[in-house]
Amino acid sequence: MSDSSPKLIGRLAIIGAGLIGSSIAWAARQRGVAEDIAVADASLSVCDRVLELGFADTVSTDPRQAAAEADLVIFCAPVGANASIIQAIAPQLKAGSIVSDVGSVKSAVVSAVLPHLPPGVHFIPAHPVAGTEFSGPDAGFAELFDNRWCILTPPEGADPAAVSLMQDFWSRIGSRVEIMSPGHHDLVLAITSHVPHLIAYNIVGTAADLEAVTQTEVIKFSAGGFRDFTRIAASDPTMWRDIFLNNKEAVLEMLGRFNEDLAALQRMIRWGDGDGLFELFTRTRAIRRGIIEQGQETPAADFGRRGPSSSKTQ
Amino acid sequence: MSDSSPKLIGRLAIIGAGLIGSSIAWAARQRGVAEDIAVADASLSVCDRVLELGFADTVSTDPRQAAAEADLVIFCAPVGANASIIQAIAPQLKAGSIVSDVGSVKSAVVSAVLPHLPPGVHFIPAHPVAGTEFSGPDAGFAELFDNRWCILTPPEGADPAAVSLMQDFWSRIGSRVEIMSPGHHDLVLAITSHVPHLIAYNIVGTAADLEAVTQTEVIKFSAGGFRDFTRIAASDPTMWRDIFLNNKEAVLEMLGRFNEDLAALQRMIRWGDGDGLFELFTRTRAIRRGIIEQGQETPAADFGRRGPSSSKTQ
Repeated sequence: MSDSSPKLIGRLAIIGAGLIGSSIAWAARQRGVAEDIAVADASLSVCDRVLELGFADTVSTDPRQAAAEADLVIFCAPVGANASIIQAIAPQLKAGSIVSDVGSVKSAVVSAVLPHLPPGVHFIPAHPVAGTEFSGPDAGFAELFDNRWCILTPPEGADPAAVSLMQDFWSRIGSRVEIMSPGHHDLVLAITSHVPHLIAYNIVGTAADLEAVTQTEVIKFSAGGFRDFTRIAASDPTMWRDIFLNNKEAVLEMLGRFNEDLAALQRMIRWGDGDGLFELFTRTRAIRRGIIEQGQETPAADFGRRGPSSSKTQ
Repeated sequence: MSDSSPKLIGRLAIIGAGLIGSSIAWAARQRGVAEDIAVADASLSVCDRVLELGFADTVSTDPRQAAAEADLVIFCAPVGANASIIQAIAPQLKAGSIVSDVGSVKSAVVSAVLPHLPPGVHFIPAHPVAGTEFSGPDAGFAELFDNRWCILTPPEGADPAAVSLMQDFWSRIGSRVEIMSPGHHDLVLAITSHVPHLIAYNIVGTAADLEAVTQTEVIKFSAGGFRDFTRIAASDPTMWRDIFLNNKEAVLEMLGRFNEDLAALQRMIRWGDGDGLFELFTRTRAIRRGIIEQGQETPAADFGRRGPSSSKTQ
């Protein structure tokens, strides 16, 4: 996959080789975006696995080693780790280099990283809105970001050239790129990602704790809707703990709206307001159509778990 | 697909040619379960489409016509329509025949149908726990029930031969069969299907109504988790209105548990209880493993929307 044209980036350093970090490395490698890729991960066994998988040129448990001489350093650890990573690598960062991240929260990341950033180093936070329920270096794949959105949240006064390079970087590895403020990002993601994960975790927890219905029954009859929730409730616990601890205000605000609406819906059921239920159930279909039209979802029935087409040919 | 061996059933009548009714017809036809299949649907355009699709021997807008001479009549309309269907067809039902249904609630269906059942006709309610987000006769396919569970809720004192025939019928069209009481069924489905649908409808409604986040943003960034909820929130509005109106007590009970647990989770976020969050987020993974092991879910990442395998071969 290598070619001789000049690369967008010299050394790319990835700190944290989970689903996102390893997917960035695969994509950058496959699409020839960087001269070389240095990966660091706190876990020695993850480092060994990265070597076996072969998506990095160098691997180390020490983030300072990966960051040295890097032109772009991307933090791909759970967001709670960012403050200690920037403190560790700050002395190694070269002038003119860019520090970025992939965290699902942005205001808290800016607060954690900016105070420790050496002068002359740019900080352009990023959030690729893409993922699966799997974690770790084996979960990564080059196509993860294709046609998904990556949100950049450059601080006020950020260097336009650095912003532009990050736009190019994410475009080259498949993403569509949008720019917004950290605060607005955190509100948007609270409703499109964080609260959905929270209620998915919650209902799976509720179901697990019931006495009147056994866990075996929950599992057997999960095809009625429940199983869809278990997918996102299987996401990485450390990552999600950090997201909720670091986007508290926006999550609580959106959760307040969710609860208010759910109380109204509960009341409709209690009082038998069929028209109210029907109106809501009709209105919600339009958003799915939009998501499918924008290429953010498969239109296949049941996520294509199996297709209806086969039987029609009988 | 026809063979000359004796069929399990003479005439099979399907009342309502939606996703479930048409899937039963396709499966019964393909697997040679009935001598002939009579379909009725209140909509003339649906009847025309059923004729085009070719999964019925006769089609009528009049359920009495389909029910006449039928050995097994299955109600596949929204559950709110069952009382008027049984009243309409009761005079046509032949002695020894079986009436069944596919409703997602069972206590209310028993109350609606039993009082109108003629003597000598058996009523064996059924609920195939299977479906997709699509509706109507075009949505049906023969494999819908393969390896899914169908729950039978025979009333006390039901004829064992009729129960046994219904077990055979659902096994022949692909299902695994379980028997339980209507009341227990309604509790199990409230947590595995009805409340999940309710909170999916609710969050999609909440997201649609926000002022701080636009609908365009919700659609763009839906890959962070939200889009999974839109699938089940695209299910048939009439069917789901009837389910909530007819399983009120069990839904409100399970929703009470959900709300209680969500309040605890909200409090953990507010007070920064990372250990509590981590504990829940870890515990919820086990249920998904169970669902995959029991063959009720695909283990493919992201529901197999795209696979990680392709990039590993670079």
